[in-house]
Amino acid sequence: MNSAKVAIIMGSDSDLPVMKEAAKILDKFGVGCQVFISSAHRVPEKTARIARTAEENGFEVIIAGAGGAAHLAGVIAALTPLPVIGVPIKSGTLDGLDALYSIVQMPSGIPVATVAVNGAKNAGILAAQILGVKYPKIRDHINRFKEEMAKQVEAKDARLQEIGLDTYLKEM
Amino acid sequence: MNSAKVAIIMGSDSDLPVMKEAAKILDKFGVGCQVFISSAHRVPEKTARIARTAEENGFEVIIAGAGGAAHLAGVIAALTPLPVIGVPIKSGTLDGLDALYSIVQMPSGIPVATVAVNGAKNAGILAAQILGVKYPKIRDHINRFKEEMAKQVEAKDARLQEIGLDTYLKEM
Amino acid sequence: MNSAKVAIIMGSDSDLPVMKEAAKILDKFGVGCQVFISSAHRVPEKTARIARTAEENGFEVIIAGAGGAAHLAGVIAALTPLPVIGVPIKSGTLDGLDALYSIVQMPSGIPVATVAVNGAKNAGILAAQILGVKYPKIRDHINRFKEEMAKQVEAKDARLQEIGLDTYLKEM
Amino acid sequence: MNSAKVAIIMGSDSDLPVMKEAAKILDKFGVGCQVFISSAHRVPEKTARIARTAEENGFEVIIAGAGGAAHLAGVIAALTPLPVIGVPIKSGTLDGLDALYSIVQMPSGIPVATVAVNGAKNAGILAAQILGVKYPKIRDHINRFKEEMAKQVEAKDARLQEIGLDTYLKEM
Amino acid sequence: MNSAKVAIIMGSDSDLPVMKEAAKILDKFGVGCQVFISSAHRVPEKTARIARTAEENGFEVIIAGAGGAAHLAGVIAALTPLPVIGVPIKSGTLDGLDALYSIVQMPSGIPVATVAVNGAKNAGILAAQILGVKYPKIRDHINRFKEEMAKQVEAKDARLQEIGLDTYLKEM
Amino acid sequence: MNSAKVAIIMGSDSDLPVMKEAAKILDKFGVGCQVFISSAHRVPEKTARIARTAEENGFEVIIAGAGGAAHLAGVIAALTPLPVIGVPIKSGTLDGLDALYSIVQMPSGIPVATVAVNGAKNAGILAAQILGVKYPKIRDHINRFKEEMAKQVEAKDARLQEIGLDTYLKEM
Amino acid sequence: MNSAKVAIIMGSDSDLPVMKEAAKILDKFGVGCQVFISSAHRVPEKTARIARTAEENGFEVIIAGAGGAAHLAGVIAALTPLPVIGVPIKSGTLDGLDALYSIVQMPSGIPVATVAVNGAKNAGILAAQILGVKYPKIRDHINRFKEEMAKQVEAKDARLQEIGLDTYLKEM
Amino acid sequence: MNSAKVAIIMGSDSDLPVMKEAAKILDKFGVGCQVFISSAHRVPEKTARIARTAEENGFEVIIAGAGGAAHLAGVIAALTPLPVIGVPIKSGTLDGLDALYSIVQMPSGIPVATVAVNGAKNAGILAAQILGVKYPKIRDHINRFKEEMAKQVEAKDARLQEIGLDTYLKEM
Repeated sequence: MNSAKVAIIMGSDSDLPVMKEAAKILDKFGVGCQVFISSAHRVPEKTARIARTAEENGFEVIIAGAGGAAHLAGVIAALTPLPVIGVPIKSGTLDGLDALYSIVQMPSGIPVATVAVNGAKNAGILAAQILGVKYPKIRDHINRFKEEMAKQVEAKDARLQEIGLDTYLKEM
Repeated sequence: MNSAKVAIIMGSDSDLPVMKEAAKILDKFGVGCQVFISSAHRVPEKTARIARTAEENGFEVIIAGAGGAAHLAGVIAALTPLPVIGVPIKSGTLDGLDALYSIVQMPSGIPVATVAVNGAKNAGILAAQILGVKYPKIRDHINRFKEEMAKQVEAKDARLQEIGLDTYLKEM
Repeated sequence: MNSAKVAIIMGSDSDLPVMKEAAKILDKFGVGCQVFISSAHRVPEKTARIARTAEENGFEVIIAGAGGAAHLAGVIAALTPLPVIGVPIKSGTLDGLDALYSIVQMPSGIPVATVAVNGAKNAGILAAQILGVKYPKIRDHINRFKEEMAKQVEAKDARLQEIGLDTYLKEM
Repeated sequence: MNSAKVAIIMGSDSDLPVMKEAAKILDKFGVGCQVFISSAHRVPEKTARIARTAEENGFEVIIAGAGGAAHLAGVIAALTPLPVIGVPIKSGTLDGLDALYSIVQMPSGIPVATVAVNGAKNAGILAAQILGVKYPKIRDHINRFKEEMAKQVEAKDARLQEIGLDTYLKEM
Repeated sequence: MNSAKVAIIMGSDSDLPVMKEAAKILDKFGVGCQVFISSAHRVPEKTARIARTAEENGFEVIIAGAGGAAHLAGVIAALTPLPVIGVPIKSGTLDGLDALYSIVQMPSGIPVATVAVNGAKNAGILAAQILGVKYPKIRDHINRFKEEMAKQVEAKDARLQEIGLDTYLKEM
Repeated sequence: MNSAKVAIIMGSDSDLPVMKEAAKILDKFGVGCQVFISSAHRVPEKTARIARTAEENGFEVIIAGAGGAAHLAGVIAALTPLPVIGVPIKSGTLDGLDALYSIVQMPSGIPVATVAVNGAKNAGILAAQILGVKYPKIRDHINRFKEEMAKQVEAKDARLQEIGLDTYLKEM
Repeated sequence: MNSAKVAIIMGSDSDLPVMKEAAKILDKFGVGCQVFISSAHRVPEKTARIARTAEENGFEVIIAGAGGAAHLAGVIAALTPLPVIGVPIKSGTLDGLDALYSIVQMPSGIPVATVAVNGAKNAGILAAQILGVKYPKIRDHINRFKEEMAKQVEAKDARLQEIGLDTYLKEM
Repeated sequence: MNSAKVAIIMGSDSDLPVMKEAAKILDKFGVGCQVFISSAHRVPEKTARIARTAEENGFEVIIAGAGGAAHLAGVIAALTPLPVIGVPIKSGTLDGLDALYSIVQMPSGIPVATVAVNGAKNAGILAAQILGVKYPKIRDHINRFKEEMAKQVEAKDARLQEIGLDTYLKEM
């Protein structure tokens, strides 16, 4: 389960601080991934090649992140039968709405599985959930991750009930 | 490949005219699905039960459609390790933006794979793409579907080049 | 009048700096409250249990605060006949609009009493106004609070009229 | 329980087709209400008088509906310690967003319990939930109403499971 | 021409850093103004009194600034035949859109002359333009102000043409 | 008081069905107006000439209505010391927001008194309020108009109290 | 000047009723154009081929129209040094905003010259203006077109001044 | 190719930090440009003169940048047959949406080629692409620029593949 199953593509290395969260959570789930910098607009042929060969190169899910007029995920989805997850990235203007609309409003026939603005971590989890349909071990990781999240919330609430609001706020 | 792999859930039967497109395209791909009416707010226990038992009942992907403060997809995603696809449905006010934001902006840890407003057909295709990771026959269906779409566009363009814009417009 | 009548629930302790204002104003009104950290998505069963048992545990009003795809208030409102007040919390993207739409646009049958983005203090006041329907002493607190607010504005205006704009601005 | 406990106020009788839903559901719950036409801008004194005397006239909750720059709910909330519920009404432009923002974004100190755009029925239910804090019989009505809603959804889903999607769609 | 002709009203002294620009420009035009702190929601009677007596107190134009659900200008316009200018103030959330919609979307019959978000200086100029209809000397001030503005732009452009872009940028 | 004091300008005669309301209400107030069709973009010189000569031609207030990238009001305001009222007109797309922003967000120094989207009637009333600063008879008209509006609302409310909601709704 | 200088591309023939306006105005200007149906998502290779060969095929400007997540213009701009004009098309949801943001917010390095939502006629005019830089005859056409537009507005205004508002409205 | 072919106009020198990017990229392409400070609202005659004489002064493309109610580009487009490129500039409120709508939503007949909010560099590139229709040397510059961009992305991706994500992030 160490070979790369997920391709994580972004148009610019300025998106890495957001997109690295997808790689980190996949790593935690034991899912291999490969990260590419490949813009839909600056290197369209390279992007098309990555998309067209993704399946034969063993990738099973693709995550694409971009800001502004974010065409990367849609352009890739046009060229592969693999499920494509899109991450809208907030850039300097319009608060990420431009990227959200550019990714989620895909025309009939070519879906992109869109997550929240800057939601790269959730893109990684969604990729793992998709792989979990096929790989029981990844499904197990998802289940453990959900239990862990639940425990963290339970622990925080237990602490709050124990020490009270004022003390809790001081400890934050 | 006839048993139901995809659960399609919506909060109200008024969403059926939109959501039936997911069932139709899955049927075309030979993917079985079961349709449920189960609101996150009106029958929360029933919805929780469907979500919690989805995996053991053999479902591998869930599609959830809702309008307004559309909590259905998120509520289901909280209770299952399966990938959950959300369809924002446009209702009488705010042009579907309320449903889009309520579905796509999920917090870290619980993704929902969001498609376009009223994009139920794309939700069905995305479900098939996800299942295609595991089932080569469904992958084949996706590939044939993409070829078919391409042929239709090619045919229309060929016709346009042949008869010219004015005649084409008259034939529409 | 010291036992907790109001449950204040939020999905994450990162919401505490906003939500603590509800507790502070209720405390000022002599209304007891209990604060819970319980996410609709990370600990759905815990959240359901709090909602379902709120009435028998003596709570009379519930305040729920969340950001992003803010399902907490709606999920709770589905499981209790108590009035539920929702506080949309502004998070990193979309300026709180996502939370506002996710809370206010509830479907017919399950209202959530929504206040302004980050309006936790007003949520506390609204809870007191609701309790004031039943408890004359809380109504008295509301009336005194309104008088106090009025006096503060009157005092500021009197000061402004006395010393003039330029001096007032320097004193700020 | 027949005397009017809820005042329903709107700025124009053109809002009646939306706002009458609040009166209808309150009537179903056995809660008396009185409907007023009184604009914040066209008859400010009348509106102020209704607000200021609401408590002494026996009203316990106020519902106010308006469109555009919808000041009615806020103007009333300024003049009464009663809980005020605001209904944003969609008019010819801006899709109801203007009314929503004008009602929900109240300043600190003067909350308005805002429901969905055109959500007058939910305003009535919320008023009943607030009265239910004091009157057990109204609480009972709320509980029965929630059960009824659940049964309707259950019945629709049962019918769908029985006759299948195609037949169900034909029957709609 | 020194007695106050313009009343400048705002709901809170936190609006003074924005609203003082209206007073400053009116002062520059030799138009007297009086500044009031008087909230539509916290001191509704005081606000109503200022509005109702504005005409008899010699005011000829009113400027009202507020943020969030900004009812101040509309509430005043309801109670006076004087022209009322509204200044939407940007507060912590929604980027001033809430205030803009709450002020500009007034119902038929009660206009508010709305300026840009945080546009207090323009509110002062507009007040002077309105007074200029009656007072030729104020009209003269407006004309001189427009000439001055033009000269400043001309001077900057002349400087830019003279020293070139690079040097100009260094001087900034 | 019959000679034209108000110039009403619009870019296209397709705006007349909205803009005629300004002329109608001014006529009712006994204020003369002249209507011009003159686009900022299609006949810029003509528009500039109307603006530049408006004062010497005896106009005292200008109303300008436009949709889309609505530059008309701002272009006129640049060329006259008269107060300019802008009416954003809703056209086929973006629900009038484009016109609203294009009119209200004027830069410092050149205000436009903006009214609601399609608010031509209010533009006429505002023009009369501005003229009322100078002409007591127009002020009297404004006062009578406000009383009339109030009486209409009072009459409707009285009728509603007399015949009850159900009968009132049937009569509508 | 009859051979095609402008390529007009759209993703679907459902866009033809909007996009045909570009062809019509270019025809009026004597500029040849060729219309293509070629989706960025359904036939990505065909679209890439059209873009890559546009220059050698003699095209000098490209117009691309699309709705929703409108990637067509950007995808073409990535593959050609020709100026690319984008037309956002309003489809069933989000009022054309999704298409506008997807086209105009292009990343640094790959501009798309964006016109108004559904602004295909203006796209044609802009293409002619661009060609007019090189071809004086097309520049002449632009100048005549501008004069014609001006005359039409002048004629309408003259008619209005002659017959008055009431008669003009009846004639409309 | 050294004489100025592109006029870059902005309303205020506060727009220079954004707009200088257009001059910089044109300089890189060997295209001469002249920068003007000339507001549509503060110096309307000067702006009209620049627009009207642009063609005879040898300019072939105009770039206009403005924020807020950004009329500059439209006002210029009304007075010249040259192609006009508009740059919406983000100012203190509304996140640049006001400028975007004011520039892109031009009425039929008078297009403005709009680029992204703050997209001055792309405006420069688009101007060069337009000039490239006429001047093969500028077309060559565009082609080289596109190759250069592609190489930069290729180099970054190659570096990432070589050193891996963790090391790459540390080097950033």
